This record gives sequence, structure tokens and C-alpha cells, in this order.
Amino acid sequence: MKVAHRAAVPPFEVMSILDRVAQLRASGRAVISLCAGEPSGGAPQDVNVRAAAAFTNGSDLGYTSALGLRELRDAVAEHYRRWYDLDVTGDDVAITTGSSGAFVLAFLAAFDASDRVALASPGYPAYRNILSALGCEVVQVECGPEQRFQPTPELLEETVRTHGRLDGLILASPANPTGTMVSRAELTALTQWCRVNGVRLISDEIYHGITYPADPTHADARGVSAWELDRSGVVVSSFSKYWGMTGWRLGWALVPEDLRAAVDALAGNVALCPPTPAQLAAVGAFTERSYAEADERVASFARTREVLLGEVPRLGWGPIAPADGAFYLYAGLGSRLGAHADSTAWCRALLEEAGVAAVPGSDFDPIHGHSYVRLSFAAGPDAVAEAVRRIAAFQEG
Amino acid sequence: MKVAHRAAVPPFEVMSILDRVAQLRASGRAVISLCAGEPSGGAPQDVNVRAAAAFTNGSDLGYTSALGLRELRDAVAEHYRRWYDLDVTGDDVAITTGSSGAFVLAFLAAFDASDRVALASPGYPAYRNILSALGCEVVQVECGPEQRFQPTPELLEETVRTHGRLDGLILASPANPTGTMVSRAELTALTQWCRVNGVRLISDEIYHGITYPADPTHADARGVSAWELDRSGVVVSSFSKYWGMTGWRLGWALVPEDLRAAVDALAGNVALCPPTPAQLAAVGAFTERSYAEADERVASFARTREVLLGEVPRLGWGPIAPADGAFYLYAGLGSRLGAHADSTAWCRALLEEAGVAAVPGSDFDPIHGHSYVRLSFAAGPDAVAEAVRRIAAFQEG
Repeated sequence: MKVAHRAAVPPFEVMSILDRVAQLRASGRAVISLCAGEPSGGAPQDVNVRAAAAFTNGSDLGYTSALGLRELRDAVAEHYRRWYDLDVTGDDVAITTGSSGAFVLAFLAAFDASDRVALASPGYPAYRNILSALGCEVVQVECGPEQRFQPTPELLEETVRTHGRLDGLILASPANPTGTMVSRAELTALTQWCRVNGVRLISDEIYHGITYPADPTHADARGVSAWELDRSGVVVSSFSKYWGMTGWRLGWALVPEDLRAAVDALAGNVALCPPTPAQLAAVGAFTERSYAEADERVASFARTREVLLGEVPRLGWGPIAPADGAFYLYAGLGSRLGAHADSTAWCRALLEEAGVAAVPGSDFDPIHGHSYVRLSFAAGPDAVAEAVRRIAAFQEG
Repeated sequence: MKVAHRAAVPPFEVMSILDRVAQLRASGRAVISLCAGEPSGGAPQDVNVRAAAAFTNGSDLGYTSALGLRELRDAVAEHYRRWYDLDVTGDDVAITTGSSGAFVLAFLAAFDASDRVALASPGYPAYRNILSALGCEVVQVECGPEQRFQPTPELLEETVRTHGRLDGLILASPANPTGTMVSRAELTALTQWCRVNGVRLISDEIYHGITYPADPTHADARGVSAWELDRSGVVVSSFSKYWGMTGWRLGWALVPEDLRAAVDALAGNVALCPPTPAQLAAVGAFTERSYAEADERVASFARTREVLLGEVPRLGWGPIAPADGAFYLYAGLGSRLGAHADSTAWCRALLEEAGVAAVPGSDFDPIHGHSYVRLSFAAGPDAVAEAVRRIAAFQEG
């Protein structure tokens, strides 16, 4: 019987690596995993307390409105006042089933099949895979170290000249896998370019708050939101990263007025509503204590990042992204690829021989990723230091 | 800026009715709502206990595998042995974010844009809205009271003759809004027709277990699963209805082997994983105590159904679906539509004048639904009896 052509989504190498990590650990090997795209430590206390109460107090855990609980939508709006001094109301906020749910809804509401949507390569592979599954044409914008792996108006102009007009642009700052961020000036130029060219911006801001600014008191230290500059795009964010709530599957979108009715109707049909227990609990993410706990985890990432950036130069690799935010380092292996055919082979050998798991760049960039790796530093400073020692020994052969 | 054409999903009348119910109740009116598509009472105790424990014991609430926790997949497989004497393994089971998540994955994996998928009209509107948003061509099969609102091979043959070949068929038993079920013989004929014609069957079995069989000890009393007859289709089910866990957003699919890799890859991209807290808790749905609690709620629905079926004849309505399962009664208003333009107008007047909320059939059947209404009997016997009294008085004018 027929299998849909659009279902031919490329598998992630990271999934087979994670399986192999589990096998090796089960056999007694002390494997260090620098694969994880999720912080450890879980949700803030106030979130867990609210969640536990919901299940013991007989709370109504039925469907909510498709766009989520009013109380949570209002709390997210208040978060935009706190972090960005931005006047957002609960009506602007759609609570979604993770940022994944927000992307599906935003893509369906903004883009028809065969619409052309640009995104940076390297980038998060689910963007292009969801877009492809929905019939959109993915236009990859090659962004190298010289652009800090982020698109620019010049690159977009060149893309239009080469490939034709665009309908959408996906921007991620901090980005996955590189951690690079766009400045206020850069984001201003990008939002203006989008407006002038009738291109709908989808701004992925899920790593906001996990940043390593030179000046932590600067107004832009958490990241600049696209809605500070222009409200015609969709902002996507999440409880997963800064608040450490990956498995809860709860995120949100700021939805421009012209997409609101469509997102509401689509959400009811595609998802009914986001998970109710998680919504009830997530109101607790916005207490002073929860912000303080999350900031403490970010400080811990910052310490690990310092260790990693201090150690990595002795590995003799090529270009390294500056990791302005998130908890990833994206690095070219350069000559240290050695006799391996590509970074996928290199990562496999590293795992088998040295017991260190990293993700090959080809998961993020089918064009140039074959010589890159992504290291997550969510694992903590000791694990990262030991991993670098093992990688150095592996490279010495 | 552009809004996608595919986002033009028709709004549900039920949503504006629910808003009006809330308004009227806030103003002090004693409104009886027969709108609800969800049972009251919440999850079984063993589920809530496991959920509360997950938040107090520091359980790992990070991402699970895209297809869900192995323990839960295995528990669902065991459920198929218990209810259907069917040999299913955890590998056959994909845990999903509600049945909504299962439909999105099944449709993406099985059907390309412009593929032609048949479904019964009346039927659950999200089927056609999701399919349309994904670019599939929805072929509505008009199923009237004479077919007990279910498709038959004869109707499908006629559909193919009139509209051309089909790629898929969505079947729901018990169905929403009618509650009608197909027998083993009817389902056998339908699965055979699908196989012969290369049509992928998507079998919605989310209301299984909420049934009102003449003989409760009969092997088919819970509903017949399509996988008892043929494993080339996708079975979709859910924790929402029988176990009363609507807001938790947890469901599953039985995935035929040829779709398994596609569903796995799509799930990781579109959803990452189903909600982890709900997955950990849902293992508790399969204890003896949980089955007993759920069965007690079904017995309560059965008592309310008896009240409703006993009272409705005095309303002088037209055709009434037999409500073999689920908690809905779908009825034609016949001459009792009176001076109202359609059942939407009738329902609005009923709500304003008599304080009873029902859903007009046009939400489920754009062709013939304008003279039908759906009554939910999840509200309990007293509410239903009072509602019928009010409807009778409303009709007397």
C-alpha cells in the first residue's frame, strides 16, 4: 500500500547515536554524552508544586480553549513586559504544544503548499522537515562563519536573485546548532527587509534567556524579540529550555492579528488544546523564585561554556561558532577530520573508541555540515572537561 | 501580508455556543449544556497518583522517544490482548499527543497532497479540516439514517464511480456525532474493500469501551478493532474518552509496518514526543482498579442514555441515530425545526429562550446537517431529563 512521498523525512543521525549511547552504557561503558538538546534539573519548584496539586486537588483537567488558559496567556504577556518592556496582551499569545506545535500552526497559517520559505543552513532540521511535509519549498540560505551562521539582508537579496521571490523566513536567535545571536541592529535590518519584501518572519526565540552577554545588565541581554521591532511576524518560544521543561510539551507563539483567526481555528482542529496539566503548572514558571532558579541554571551553563571555550583550542579544529546563547558549540573539524570520510564517521569512531557522543553537522546542514560537529554543554563542566581530554587523546590516535 | 489559503478552516459553531454558555452562566442563568465532547470526573485514581508522584519524586520529565515510553507502548499492547484477544507488541504502538496527534501523523505518512480521502458525512469535522489543511482532497460520503450514518462498500463503490479512485478512508466506530457502530461483518466487508482497492483505512476507535451492547458479555461488546481483521490500516485511539483524560492530550496509533519509519521520523519532527508527565501517569490506566472506574462511568452514561432515549420520542423529532456507543445522540428535527431557518438558528434560540445548549448538525455535515442536532449525554440523567422538558416547552412555544 502507498506510503506518502512527503513522509520521506530524513532520519536524524542523533537518534541512532542516542540508541548506541544507551547500548554502550548498558554494557558498562562510561559514555559522556554531549548530544543532549535539553537541560538537566527539570522544571522550577513552583511549577512542580502546582502540577502535583493539580492531580491531588481534583482540578479540571479537561480541554481548555484551543489557544490555552487565559491565566497562562496573560502570564506570558506579563513576561514580555518583564524581559522586553513590551506591551503584549494575552490575546496576542497562543499557548501551544511545545514550540513544535507553534511551528506547525504558524507554517500552516502563513504558508500554502509550494510557498517558498528561507532558512539558515546550518539550522534546526525540524524546520525544513516540517515545511517539506507540509508541501512548502525550503530555500536554504548558506550562512557560514563569516556571517556568524545567520542570514543577512544581503544574503537574502542574493537568495532572491538566484532562486526567486520568498514568502517566509525562519530566523533563530540564539540558533541551534551554532548558538549565534543577531543583534538589535541586525534584527532591525532583517525585519525591515521582510516587511519591504512581503516576507513573513517566523522568529524562533526558544533559547532566549540562555545567553552569555558581555554586559548582563544590557537591555538586550536576554535576546531581542522580533516583536520589539515589528509585529507582522510570528514569535515562537517555549517553556522547554530556559525553564527546563522539555518533556512537558508546552510553548507559545505571539500571533500577528492577521493570522489570529486562522491559528485559532487550526489549533482546535490539529491539536484541540495544549496539555492542560502542563498549562496549569506553567503559571508557576513566572514567579520570582522560578526566574531565580532558571537564572542559576543559566549561570551554570555559562561556567561550563567557559571551560569548553578554554579547552577547545587545543583540539586544533577549524572555525568555531561563538556560542552567544543556547548550550551548543558548533565547530568545524578542519584537518582533524583525519582519515574519516565525514563528521558522521568521525562521531561514530569517537563514540566507539573514546566513549564521547557528539552530533555530526550533517544533521543541521546537508551541504557543509559533513565537516562540523555540535557539542552540547548541558552536561556540566566536569563532563565537558573530561570529554575534551578524551577527544584530544582520540585525535592523537 | 499573506494568510495561507489552507488556513481558511471553517470555525465551529460549537465554540461560539460554548462562549455564549459561559456568558449566560456568568449572568446567573441556569444553562444546561449538552455540548460537551468530554466525560466529567477526570482520570482514574491510579493515573492521578502516578502523575502526582512524578512531580514530587524528581522523575525525569525530559523528552522520551518520539513514539513514546517503551513501558507505555507495551502496556497499550497488553490492552489489545485484554479487550480484543489480539497479539500486538509495543513496536506496533505509537504513543501520540492525543488522537489529534495520531491523525496528523497518519495523514502525513499515508497521504500526499491531492490524494483523495473518503469520510462519512456526518462526521467529526477535524478529519476534513486537518486533511484540507494538509492539501488532501476530502471526499464526503453521504451516509444517512438508512445506512446508520456509516459508509458501506456499496456507498464507496458509488463514490468511486462518481468521483474517481480513492487513496484513503476514515472510519469511526462508535462515530461522532451519531454514536453508531459497525458490526464485525460490516467492518470485515469494509477492510476487504479497502484492501482490494488499495485504499488505506484510518480507523478511529477512540470511543471503544463506551458502548451499550445488547449482550455485554459478547466478544465484540467493546467495539471491533480494524486490526482484528487487517493490519494494513492505521488504528487511532486515545486515553481521552474511556479513561476521561481529555486535557492530558495522550493517544496512540497502531501503525502498519510499511508506515512505521515514516511515522517515527515525522513524529520526531512534528511533535518531538508526546507529553512525558502524561505518559508516565497513563501507565496507571491499565490497572484493574482503573478499568473498574472507567467501566463505572460507562455504566453511568448507559443510565443517562436510557433516560434520553426514553424521553426523546415525545419531542416529535425526525430520524434518530441509535447511539450504539460514545455519549451522543444525533437527531433530525424534522418539522420541529418550525420557523427557524436551520438547526443553527434553532440551537441559538433554544439556548437564549430555554437555556439548553446543543450543537447544530452543520458542524458535522455541511450538506444535510442543517436540520440535525447533536445532544451529548455526558451531563448525567437529571440534567438530560430537565433539558428534554425545556426543549419540549420551547417547541410548544
